[in-house]
Parts: sequence; C-alpha cells; structure tokens
Amino acid sequence: MCVRRCVITVGDLGEFGVINRITERLPQVAAVMLGPGDDAAMISAPDGRVVVSTDLLLEGRHFRRDWSGGYDVGRKAAAQNLADVAAMGAVPTSIVVGLGMPADLPLTWLDALTDGFRDECAVVGAGVAGGDITRCDLVVIGVTALGDLGGRPPVLRSGARPGHVVAVAGRLGYAAAGWALLEAGAPVDSAVLQEVVAAHRRPCPPYAMGPEAAELGASAMLDVSDGLLQDLGHVAAASGVRVELDPRSFAVGEPVAVAAKELGADPLEWVLTGGEDHALAAVFPPEVRLPPSWQVVGRVVAGEGVLVRGREISRRGWDHFR
Amino acid sequence: MCVRRCVITVGDLGEFGVINRITERLPQVAAVMLGPGDDAAMISAPDGRVVVSTDLLLEGRHFRRDWSGGYDVGRKAAAQNLADVAAMGAVPTSIVVGLGMPADLPLTWLDALTDGFRDECAVVGAGVAGGDITRCDLVVIGVTALGDLGGRPPVLRSGARPGHVVAVAGRLGYAAAGWALLEAGAPVDSAVLQEVVAAHRRPCPPYAMGPEAAELGASAMLDVSDGLLQDLGHVAAASGVRVELDPRSFAVGEPVAVAAKELGADPLEWVLTGGEDHALAAVFPPEVRLPPSWQVVGRVVAGEGVLVRGREISRRGWDHFR
Repeated sequence: MCVRRCVITVGDLGEFGVINRITERLPQVAAVMLGPGDDAAMISAPDGRVVVSTDLLLEGRHFRRDWSGGYDVGRKAAAQNLADVAAMGAVPTSIVVGLGMPADLPLTWLDALTDGFRDECAVVGAGVAGGDITRCDLVVIGVTALGDLGGRPPVLRSGARPGHVVAVAGRLGYAAAGWALLEAGAPVDSAVLQEVVAAHRRPCPPYAMGPEAAELGASAMLDVSDGLLQDLGHVAAASGVRVELDPRSFAVGEPVAVAAKELGADPLEWVLTGGEDHALAAVFPPEVRLPPSWQVVGRVVAGEGVLVRGREISRRGWDHFR
Repeated sequence: MCVRRCVITVGDLGEFGVINRITERLPQVAAVMLGPGDDAAMISAPDGRVVVSTDLLLEGRHFRRDWSGGYDVGRKAAAQNLADVAAMGAVPTSIVVGLGMPADLPLTWLDALTDGFRDECAVVGAGVAGGDITRCDLVVIGVTALGDLGGRPPVLRSGARPGHVVAVAGRLGYAAAGWALLEAGAPVDSAVLQEVVAAHRRPCPPYAMGPEAAELGASAMLDVSDGLLQDLGHVAAASGVRVELDPRSFAVGEPVAVAAKELGADPLEWVLTGGEDHALAAVFPPEVRLPPSWQVVGRVVAGEGVLVRGREISRRGWDHFR
C-alpha cells in the first residue's frame, strides 16, 4: 500500500536523473547550436552583439504554488525575461535557467515547469539552452534570456525627446486585477474574471512589437514590469524629459473593469501602476505612423517626471525592499 | 545613541538605491557595450556565437556567511561560471547576476560581494553587465557568464578517443581540504592550512588554459566542479570511452597533504573526488606537445567508465539531491 510515497519526487530521481528528465522534454531549436549537457551552451549571435537579461523568481514572493501551477510559473518566468529582450528591439534566441527546488517537489510539477519554459520560448522561436539545478527549501528560478538585434541599434530608455509620442502595446492592469482578486479571496466564477486571474498567472507580452518598434524608429522603449508610471519614470529620468499621460486615452480592458467593479477598486490605478503584464511602452518621433498594435497614451515634453493630466493618481510602483 | 541601527542595511537604501550602489562600483569593460540600467545589457559577440553558462548559489548550501565573507562569495560565484565558459575554450566576456537578499543584509556585505564579482571578472577581462535584485530570506545568487570562442570550435565532452592523453590544469583537492578543516572545526593556525581554507572560500581556476587547450587541439574538456572522477565520468560517457587514471602521476599539493595529515584523511581522495577548485581537465591527441601548465594524469582506452589503476577509491562525487 502506497500512502505517502505514491508521489514521485525530484529527490527520487537524483540530480542527474532530474537533468535528463528536463532535457528530454526540450526540443532542438535552430538558434541553440549546443544545448544542455556540456559545461556551457552555445547560441547563435549573428549580429555580433548579444542582448542579455536576467531575473530571479522566488516562491512566496513572485509566485505561490497554491495560486499558480508549475506550467504557469515556467511560462511567467520565461516571459518576463523574453520581454526584456524584446524591449531592446531584439528577437529572443534562448534562455538558460538556474533552478533550486526541494527534494520533495513532485516530478509532475517539475515537468509542468519545464513545459512552461519550453512553450513560452516557442512563442518567439527561442529554446531552453541549458541550466543548473540545486536543492533548496523553496523553488527558486533564475532565468537569463539572450537575443539578437538583427543589425538594429538597441532601443534604450534614454532617447525620448520633447515632441515625441508615448505609446503602449499589450495589456495593462490585467495581472494586477487578477492578483487583487486572488488576494481578496473573491469568487472567480465568470470567464471574464478568469481572464485576469490567468493574466496574473501567465503574462502575454507583445514580443513581436519590440523589434517592430525598433524598425519603426522608436526613440525609447521598455517593458512594463513595475507599473507604467514607475517604468515611464525611468524613461523620463534617463532621457531628461517629462512624460505626460492622458488617462482618457487608455482603453481599460473589459475584464479589468469587471474585476474593479467586483472589488470596488479603480481600474485605472491597476492600468497605471500594475506590473507583471509585461506590456511594452515606447516613445516615437512624431512623424512615425504607428500601426494599430500601438496605442498612443501620451507625449513627451520638456521637464521631468511623469504627469497624469487631469487626474491625481498614486505613483507608487513596486520596490522590492520597501 | 545608535545601538541596533548603526549598521546600514540593504533595506535602508531601497531597491533603486541598492541598484545604484552596485552599479557605481562596476568599471566599464570593452566587451560590455551596454551595461546596467536598461531592460537588458548588450555584449560584444564578435565570433557570431556566444557561449553561456549559469549557476545558482544558495546561502547555507553553497556558502555560509559565517565561513565566507561577501568578497569571497562574489569571487567564487563568478569564478565557477567563468570557469565553465573557459572549459569550452572560450574567453569570458561578461556576467549577469540575479541577487536575492534579506533587507537586513549589511551594506558592507553587499559592497564586498559586488567587489568580488568585479575582481574575479577582471582576472579574465570580463565585466558585470547587469542583473536583478529581489528580497529573499537567504542570500541567493544566480550568475550567468557569457564568452566568445574567437573562431575556434567549442571543446565538448564528447571528443575523447582511445590513445588520447588526459591532463589537468589548476589545483585539485585544495577546496575539499579547506572545507574539511572548517567542518571539523580544526585550528587553522599555519599559513599552509590557511591556503586550503582560502581555496575553499575562493577558487583560482586556470582560465587562460581553456582557450590554450582549444588552440592546442584538445579533443575534450570540462571544468572540475563535482570531483575529477565524477567529472571525467561525464567525458567517458559522452565520448564512449574509458578513462584510466594513474594516481602516482598526481602531484598532491603540499597544503593538501598537510591538511590530510592534520585530519587523518587521505589526500588523494580529496584530489580525485573534491570539487570546487574548478581545475580544467582535458583530453589531447597523443601527438600534442603539452606545455607545463598541463599535467598528464591518465589516458583514454576503449571501454567505459573511469578506472584508477592500482588503487581502489570511492567514485562518489556530489549529487545535489542525494
């Protein structure tokens, strides 16, 4: 009779069994010239420059295993780094993953996590090139993403100039609304509410819009990870300009509006200060004709900081140490 | 009167204060075309391919703050990834770092950690290109290192052939001896014992020997991180050969011999199974004339596994989940 031991765990397989288990689930991808199994991986970098971004995700802080399954955590962990690479105007080529986990972690959870990495990478044609595993009381995930600029200059935060327009691509406020619903323990019984909870669990960054913005001639760009106000504050500071947003120009998504009504919250606050959707915010010279993927939300003027015209709103974003 | 609060901590600075504190300590390096401060860094990759390796280091598992200061932890964390890059035959160009830390971490410890990253990178001319910080109860460090092959093919684990010779560069057994002394609580009162303890705290990988071995025509190479026997087992398995080591050919370092005498241990066991010195082990065709940086320790024959001739020895290395 199996009672406790019918769940196969990471510890049952041991280090090399786990490594094999992970690598067997990963497809070969053209940009990954040498994948897992050696001291290091080898990635194609045809541009002669490589864009690289890294993030650390901790159980209990960035995700909860009772709120998000392994698959969602894997997709989210990959997404937030792939979005950083796209926000430079680059096409992601690969990720490498450092993974700490308890020996009693169910193997099904690890499999799902691996599949999440794999599938989020597949969205942009990237591959999981390698990694490192170690034992840890908590699940700790360090993801590093690489990308190729295809000959384009990188789009920095510092190129915004007065007269330029500010635009966003992708969703805003969805993940914040989903998190608020979960934290309030509110019933999530409609498809529309499930959509924001799903957005909290798994962002859906507009990857292709990064290289698109670069091709269009964006003067500045970043991915919205700490909230639009705070992140545009980085653009304002780096560029030495003021960003003026017009809150009337924001199309608040219906699921965000419904969740706000459910909780008696202000949907615009989520849109302006919620992170984790990994939308892209970019600044363009005024002569650029923007495709419909980009929604104009404000403009750049002389000055400093970020101003929301016609309306006061908290500018607080997320500070990991405050 | 300041009693508890006279130690300035990471939490006192907040997230962006900490990021500024770290980046101010980092010099500009030629290969890092765009350093910290944007969504991603940009690294020179003149070869058109980039070598990448990642590792996760956890307080309590990979280091102890009561045994190692921040400076040593930084050097060690950087070293183990830079050594992986060198073991492919590549020249390291940069690292990126994901850093989790408690809010009450003294700022002096963080400064020392940063300086450790910086100084270990400087050994190979690499730079700290960027990173991510987050709050965590423990110090968690994810390091990813990049490198450039300079037009050379990567040296894999799979190229060893019968008739080739096995050689090592760098120190073996030093870190294991130092760890054993610390764990036994043995007095470390002589310079010779302090040397192995220092080796545990801060490895000294023979970085330049990686590209050197590639230029010499090495058929296989790896860095010794889990113990020579276990790591050469990976070469044997990947190449489909047997590795025969001659224990009489190992020059046991004097500090290792002294530490073994102190603890009544077998120094050869540390040499053959101790990890963390990040020596390089390589296999060369027999016609290659090896410079003195490489010490021949065995040969490749038909068969499988790793055999230590004339002597039985435990083959156990380090398994993170057993």
